[in-house]
Amino acid sequence: MMRNIKIVAFDADDTLWANEDLFRQAEEQFCVLLAPYADKYAAKEELYSTEIKNLPLYGYGIKAFVLSMIETSLKISGNKIPSATIGEMINIGRTMLKQPVKLLPGTLTAFKTLSQKYKLVVATKGDLLDQERKLHKSGLTKYLHHIEIMSEKNIRGYKTLMARLGVMPQEFIMVGNSLKSDIMPVVKLGAKAVWIPYALTWQHENLNTGKLSHGFIKVDKIEDLLKIL
Amino acid sequence: MMRNIKIVAFDADDTLWANEDLFRQAEEQFCVLLAPYADKYAAKEELYSTEIKNLPLYGYGIKAFVLSMIETSLKISGNKIPSATIGEMINIGRTMLKQPVKLLPGTLTAFKTLSQKYKLVVATKGDLLDQERKLHKSGLTKYLHHIEIMSEKNIRGYKTLMARLGVMPQEFIMVGNSLKSDIMPVVKLGAKAVWIPYALTWQHENLNTGKLSHGFIKVDKIEDLLKIL
Repeated sequence: MMRNIKIVAFDADDTLWANEDLFRQAEEQFCVLLAPYADKYAAKEELYSTEIKNLPLYGYGIKAFVLSMIETSLKISGNKIPSATIGEMINIGRTMLKQPVKLLPGTLTAFKTLSQKYKLVVATKGDLLDQERKLHKSGLTKYLHHIEIMSEKNIRGYKTLMARLGVMPQEFIMVGNSLKSDIMPVVKLGAKAVWIPYALTWQHENLNTGKLSHGFIKVDKIEDLLKIL
Repeated sequence: MMRNIKIVAFDADDTLWANEDLFRQAEEQFCVLLAPYADKYAAKEELYSTEIKNLPLYGYGIKAFVLSMIETSLKISGNKIPSATIGEMINIGRTMLKQPVKLLPGTLTAFKTLSQKYKLVVATKGDLLDQERKLHKSGLTKYLHHIEIMSEKNIRGYKTLMARLGVMPQEFIMVGNSLKSDIMPVVKLGAKAVWIPYALTWQHENLNTGKLSHGFIKVDKIEDLLKIL
């Protein structure tokens, strides 16, 4: 058991519910639309590099992804992509935004149990409205003390969050699937972290785990939290 | 002078800096691009109705606006709009996102003076990353106790904000240019509000002022706050 913990904070996408799958499917659809102009591998690579280029300007989320798909399609096709196909990309985004939220197994049990002992927080990045809608659809909000939508999950962002919650790093534990966004900055601040790897990770969130020598716990599924908290 | 006030909260767009002008200019550019398919009036009307339809799905901000421009152009042209023209719409959005932030006259003086007596907060809606970037560029963050980016500025949103800040409605005053978003919900909660009309208001933010019989103060410019606070 861990002592002194007051706040248990959770990442949302791919920690509480599946999300990356949605983007992977959309990428596949994008490659099919681009097939007359580029092979699948080239289309994916170009889309990824457009997304990374646009990240400082657009941030995370589905709207940013759609704008990057359109921009990539114009570039790859030399502006020859039919307008109707661009309309299909907009529809891919609309479908993504309307997806139901499917909690990963064990999430509800973990929230019910942990909320009796700790203040639970969700700390996620991405599009404000979209993340709020997913949380609302998830049915988890009634267990939550606070929701923080961060523009970037870095040391500064977590420092601000802890200050806002009025806790010291040793009273804070973060749970998430991304070593880069959920684990590393939190460990660097002297707080605790639990890593629950997800089957799929966006290239941009990948991190050589060799860089992290210690300071966090790895579990296989969210219910394993009940053994340590 | 007002008693008991602890928090002075400010709207951002068109209260601290000009913003609506940017959208109006973009609309004009959009109409020029659409000129082969529709007259200016029809193009603007169709764009506005697309924006309103998309609001629950996309929320506020420049990315949402760009996606609505593209969708509108496909509809108006019957998918005949050249792809290169869609690329120009993406560029309009990029230019908007990169605009420098120009504070409205008197804003800095008001912030310097008021921050010595009150905790200052910015409560704004729109795109998370874009609003944070504008606040950073504005140079105002050093005077701020808290920044709240709200997905919707309604009664529920302001209630959450006051709870987060630990203040009662009578200790809270909101300053903004939109009767619908900045004044009405705040007055309904029993808090105080100061309306500073801006030369331009987005159609969606317009409100028949007859509905608001009392409960707020109207001033002409932000420096007038120093006479009442």
